[in-house]
Amino acid sequence: MLQQRSLRLLSSLSHRAPRSAAAPLSASLRCRRGYSIHADASVGNKIKDIDPTKLTITTTKTPKDLLPAEELIFGRNFSDHMLSLEWTASEGWLPARITPYQNLSLDPATCVFHYAFECFEGMKAYKDKQGDIRLFRPDRNMARLNKSSARIALPTFDGDALIDIIGKFVKTDKRFIPDARGYSLYLRPTMIGTQRTLGVGPPASALLYVIASPVGPYYPTGFKAISLEATDYAVRAWPGGVGDKKLGANYAPCILPQMQAASRGFHQNLWLFGEEEFVTEVGTMNLFAAIKNKETGKPELLTAPLDGTILEGVTRDSILALARERLEPKGWTVSERKFTMKDIAEAADDGRMMEIFGAGTAAIVAPVRKISWKGRLVDCGLEDHVEAGPVAQQMKDWMESIQYGDEDHPWSYKVI
Amino acid sequence: MLQQRSLRLLSSLSHRAPRSAAAPLSASLRCRRGYSIHADASVGNKIKDIDPTKLTITTTKTPKDLLPAEELIFGRNFSDHMLSLEWTASEGWLPARITPYQNLSLDPATCVFHYAFECFEGMKAYKDKQGDIRLFRPDRNMARLNKSSARIALPTFDGDALIDIIGKFVKTDKRFIPDARGYSLYLRPTMIGTQRTLGVGPPASALLYVIASPVGPYYPTGFKAISLEATDYAVRAWPGGVGDKKLGANYAPCILPQMQAASRGFHQNLWLFGEEEFVTEVGTMNLFAAIKNKETGKPELLTAPLDGTILEGVTRDSILALARERLEPKGWTVSERKFTMKDIAEAADDGRMMEIFGAGTAAIVAPVRKISWKGRLVDCGLEDHVEAGPVAQQMKDWMESIQYGDEDHPWSYKVI
Repeated sequence: MLQQRSLRLLSSLSHRAPRSAAAPLSASLRCRRGYSIHADASVGNKIKDIDPTKLTITTTKTPKDLLPAEELIFGRNFSDHMLSLEWTASEGWLPARITPYQNLSLDPATCVFHYAFECFEGMKAYKDKQGDIRLFRPDRNMARLNKSSARIALPTFDGDALIDIIGKFVKTDKRFIPDARGYSLYLRPTMIGTQRTLGVGPPASALLYVIASPVGPYYPTGFKAISLEATDYAVRAWPGGVGDKKLGANYAPCILPQMQAASRGFHQNLWLFGEEEFVTEVGTMNLFAAIKNKETGKPELLTAPLDGTILEGVTRDSILALARERLEPKGWTVSERKFTMKDIAEAADDGRMMEIFGAGTAAIVAPVRKISWKGRLVDCGLEDHVEAGPVAQQMKDWMESIQYGDEDHPWSYKVI
Repeated sequence: MLQQRSLRLLSSLSHRAPRSAAAPLSASLRCRRGYSIHADASVGNKIKDIDPTKLTITTTKTPKDLLPAEELIFGRNFSDHMLSLEWTASEGWLPARITPYQNLSLDPATCVFHYAFECFEGMKAYKDKQGDIRLFRPDRNMARLNKSSARIALPTFDGDALIDIIGKFVKTDKRFIPDARGYSLYLRPTMIGTQRTLGVGPPASALLYVIASPVGPYYPTGFKAISLEATDYAVRAWPGGVGDKKLGANYAPCILPQMQAASRGFHQNLWLFGEEEFVTEVGTMNLFAAIKNKETGKPELLTAPLDGTILEGVTRDSILALARERLEPKGWTVSERKFTMKDIAEAADDGRMMEIFGAGTAAIVAPVRKISWKGRLVDCGLEDHVEAGPVAQQMKDWMESIQYGDEDHPWSYKVI
């Protein structure tokens, strides 16, 4: 039984060439010349990129029962299958496999357990009115995963090839995509280093896998505005750091500040940066503020710029693009610029605050009611009986219209 | 076969209570009240700490051949057994098990793969002249592992209890400790989050395991001084971050700067911080500089202070203590204070540079010959024919004398 449940990693079971010679410090001296499609002169082989034609599919003999829609919880239950691709430094990407969902069997020395060689993506597959499957801007996820993996010496890959294979995976598990607005199949592409030695160096083998979890609406009974606690004792990211990459390394250290905020009754923590207390991100989302500009009095939609400390959210980018296309003609200014918690508090005090919301794949938008900062509660502009501002509501509608294929839009990728 | 090789995780195979309710954002709202020995009123059970009397030992039926001493490479080969302890939020620490070394079988949704819920220690077991086994300051490793795990919402534990059990583990694999100066059994205590859901929150289950790799001297043919490249484009750690904890998260992002340095012919990179270019760490070691003080002309042994950006190295702490005890009476000043790359370069230019060395468990000390910085090579005081300065050499001798039990010292922990 366990044999069936454990995914055998070819690379970790086969013999591989030593990663480091006996000479001291050689592990850190050794430097690979490239990760993906370079010719490897040492073995005379071409390093292979992902080849969608090599995909093999082994379907499960024990399909799961579908959960009732109201029992779906984010990332708790998974579809019948998973997609796996192994990579080795000498061969490149081995053929992709769709197999029954199963455990990974890994040596306890595997580098993912010790040095956080891991990065991931979050994306969703939607069912449109015609019953076709759609992805939302998958090219963005592929580009970001490549940037994340390259930053931690994991391999890169052909994004279009992986989108092709992910499409086939999603089709294999199509029955897990709920057939209703607000529902989707959450996809979690994950790449981990699988080298099974403790030397600190670039992994010579990796595993890229995708699992899928059917999810319901983030707000099953309509928006519910959240309250934030501004965190002043911990810092999420730093210039020259890796806060703009979707690395596992950015997440575990965020839990404690979240729990601290929760212990004082707040839903999420708000990450500030520097003595100026620049507003950066909220929990695991990007943050948007809509205020009336101090100088011009014009409405302005604000978010922090991509200065290396901000996760390059796909939802963030989409909201910015939609705002530029559809709000600017109505007199809005759309700004990627640094702004401080003091700016936010001033806008609230001056009656210039319109609304604040988080933005991410899970919720699309998460309206904010209050922010705890320096012993005061900054009001974010929502009237008491209202759970979302008009911009957040509008963005959610626009995004869902594209995601579910109601509106024909180049961001929506139909799985053929 | 695979069944034997895969460690079954009780906690990840058994049903557990949901981590989050269906209500939005509840995962981040939920806050456990304590990690280790608090009573859990909700179930009426005592949360258990580690209990050494509950240890079970299952020895291997297929013992490995010992490798010849000259073939030992750090972290590549492991002993016959491993030590494992599971933890659940509802029960606490389950009984420790010594089992044959085997793969971990983990659900692909397990949080260690996604959010870097992982921390570790590096320590060594030495064989003394009487054939007894000794650990070096294991209480320091336990204290640090507890600090690391607490920072990422993993459980803490009774350090003395784990030292007791690690002692039994090392005795079980005693034959893997090479019987010669410079050789040891490297121990890698590792803690990972094992919750198998994708919600970002504190793991409700974890696994603490220890694996052991026999290792030879870092410098098999005597010291070999290394050259460093000062890194000015990437930052390892920052105030309010987690650079002082031994988290996996601190390691993967360090590989690329190491590879960059290696591509230009340097053994390791030197981490600087801030516009002032404070000297912080070297690769994965702490850094010490011995210079003649600019004002006093007295010899000074310098290392960066524990300001939250510096790993609290056990070797660092030991070198500081030995220097205070044995070098200060000879006229040295021992300082934990901030110093810049400019200070180092000035000392070299003024003829005040004595020596520089890295410090860590693997090498004890790693003498530095040159540092590349702003287009120049800063000479670190070693004469051409010399591979280590007198302080580095002295520290290595003092440390080994304690580690191998030649000198009776409270830092040496004899395994009974």
